[in-house]
Amino acid sequence: MQADGEFDLIARYFKRPAPDRMLGVGDDCALMPLSSGCELAVSTDMLVEGRHFLPDADPASLGHKALAVNLSDLAAMGARPLACTLALSLPAVDHAWLAAFSEGFHALARESHCPLVGGDTTRGDAVVLSITVLGEVRRSHALRRDAARVGDDVWVSGTLGAADLALRLLLGRLPPDPERLRAVRPALDRPMPRLKLGRYLAGVAHAAIDVSDGLLQDFGHILQASHCGGELWLDALPAHPALAGLDETLRREALLAGGDAYELCFTARPLWREQIEVLGRQLNVPVTRVGRLVRGEGVRVLDGAGQAVPVARRGFDHFAEPCGDLA
Amino acid sequence: MQADGEFDLIARYFKRPAPDRMLGVGDDCALMPLSSGCELAVSTDMLVEGRHFLPDADPASLGHKALAVNLSDLAAMGARPLACTLALSLPAVDHAWLAAFSEGFHALARESHCPLVGGDTTRGDAVVLSITVLGEVRRSHALRRDAARVGDDVWVSGTLGAADLALRLLLGRLPPDPERLRAVRPALDRPMPRLKLGRYLAGVAHAAIDVSDGLLQDFGHILQASHCGGELWLDALPAHPALAGLDETLRREALLAGGDAYELCFTARPLWREQIEVLGRQLNVPVTRVGRLVRGEGVRVLDGAGQAVPVARRGFDHFAEPCGDLA
Repeated sequence: MQADGEFDLIARYFKRPAPDRMLGVGDDCALMPLSSGCELAVSTDMLVEGRHFLPDADPASLGHKALAVNLSDLAAMGARPLACTLALSLPAVDHAWLAAFSEGFHALARESHCPLVGGDTTRGDAVVLSITVLGEVRRSHALRRDAARVGDDVWVSGTLGAADLALRLLLGRLPPDPERLRAVRPALDRPMPRLKLGRYLAGVAHAAIDVSDGLLQDFGHILQASHCGGELWLDALPAHPALAGLDETLRREALLAGGDAYELCFTARPLWREQIEVLGRQLNVPVTRVGRLVRGEGVRVLDGAGQAVPVARRGFDHFAEPCGDLA
Repeated sequence: MQADGEFDLIARYFKRPAPDRMLGVGDDCALMPLSSGCELAVSTDMLVEGRHFLPDADPASLGHKALAVNLSDLAAMGARPLACTLALSLPAVDHAWLAAFSEGFHALARESHCPLVGGDTTRGDAVVLSITVLGEVRRSHALRRDAARVGDDVWVSGTLGAADLALRLLLGRLPPDPERLRAVRPALDRPMPRLKLGRYLAGVAHAAIDVSDGLLQDFGHILQASHCGGELWLDALPAHPALAGLDETLRREALLAGGDAYELCFTARPLWREQIEVLGRQLNVPVTRVGRLVRGEGVRVLDGAGQAVPVARRGFDHFAEPCGDLA
């Protein structure tokens, strides 16, 4: 984590001790007790044109993705979606854009049982979206970042690296490769939040986070909050098939530091291994054991021989990275 | 209401039938049932630099106001604040600005018992704030826009016109008048949401809205949602003392169409007149009876002789007004 990074800003200026029985800033969602024996989970995310999405992004995909990344926070908390709100700043009223955007948004909202219940639109120089999702989870069942324990297995859902590869191809950072781009683009444009998996893991897994800024960085948040160390096994990481044949350095970066994956990284007692594998099969979501929690602090990446692998780029931070990274 | 206005965009692209027992887009807040016999109230607002606030706005006042305008939506619903989230786009990290902004924000959050529980910061070309507030209100007690009835009194809290006058003076649309500006500026910079009044009115008043876009326009939303007509009595409107001596046209505009007032306009049975006046005295909030609801549709403004007054500018619409109105 770097000085002046986005996490640092939140911690420095906006974090305050949470009131009694609440969980405040610093997890995938905030939690508030409800009298029904449940907790209310809340998460908010802002997406800025030129930073989080390209100005010519397909509006229907953007509508889908803007909601998906927020629902992914509910999934990582094990919460069931209740509703969402949307605030939207636009430079001008473009009816074709709005129709497509809202269609993409509502289609996922319907599928996820997360109706849009509040909105605000205003004019601004750039397209800025801000979405807040509300969900509920049974009291003390939420998958908090600070609940991992030494000895836990570390798991990852789905596959990693596809969205990162798609972004590099789109930005021209790799030689054009239309076939590979076709294979990985859906992962970037239309990620599916792991809501069902998250809900079934609530009460089973200890801790969870969604992989939005890269596995190393996001897993690091669990370790930091839970005061333990972790190992990740490079050869065990579930790579998207389209990563086959890539340069090894690039492949590692995509797996370990690639953002936008929206898969769940979670920890659970070894006792639950078989049940978690069965759950993955039932939900048709691959779940892969990729490491374990150890005493100490920080994360070590080990190769097939158990040797530590040096790692460079650790993830994505909207403020620490140079401006205009997507533009 | 004009075509392509902000309300039209929400209705056209984002409004969907609300699920059972929920109130969706189109009121001050959305409502969702909680198992505790309460409803969850949610509201979201976005503020863009150059449109909703001046680029050189005092950051502490901005922090206060950004939260205040959202709390005002809870007040207008009769809801008790639970918590809020903040998403913030900034062109660069300015520590002095952030320290002042967060201080103004948290001071009002503390005072209003509305802790910040979630946040997102990102880099963007302009300062954009998006805040979501959560509150709760006893089931069927919420002050919905569609609950006004023919025969109701129309009330306004506090005074009107000060924020509008302050904005005109700051934008140089009126000759400089430092003394008057000093008197009205707090109303623009540090509005106080009428949370207590709203909570006590829940279950007593029928309908309420907060005056953010001008009394005529906001009162019109109640009439439209409740399918009735309304009268406003020009001479009864509670003008801020600093409006004394202003040109009559300007004064009327400030009273009827001036935005940013964040007072409550509410309707209640005549039976409750005395209790509402007592409540105002107890809370030390002026409450003034300014009209009544009648059969029909639309709003008529009457002068002291009961004659209809022609009215020009009806309120403020971020999309319908020419771009850059504040810049």
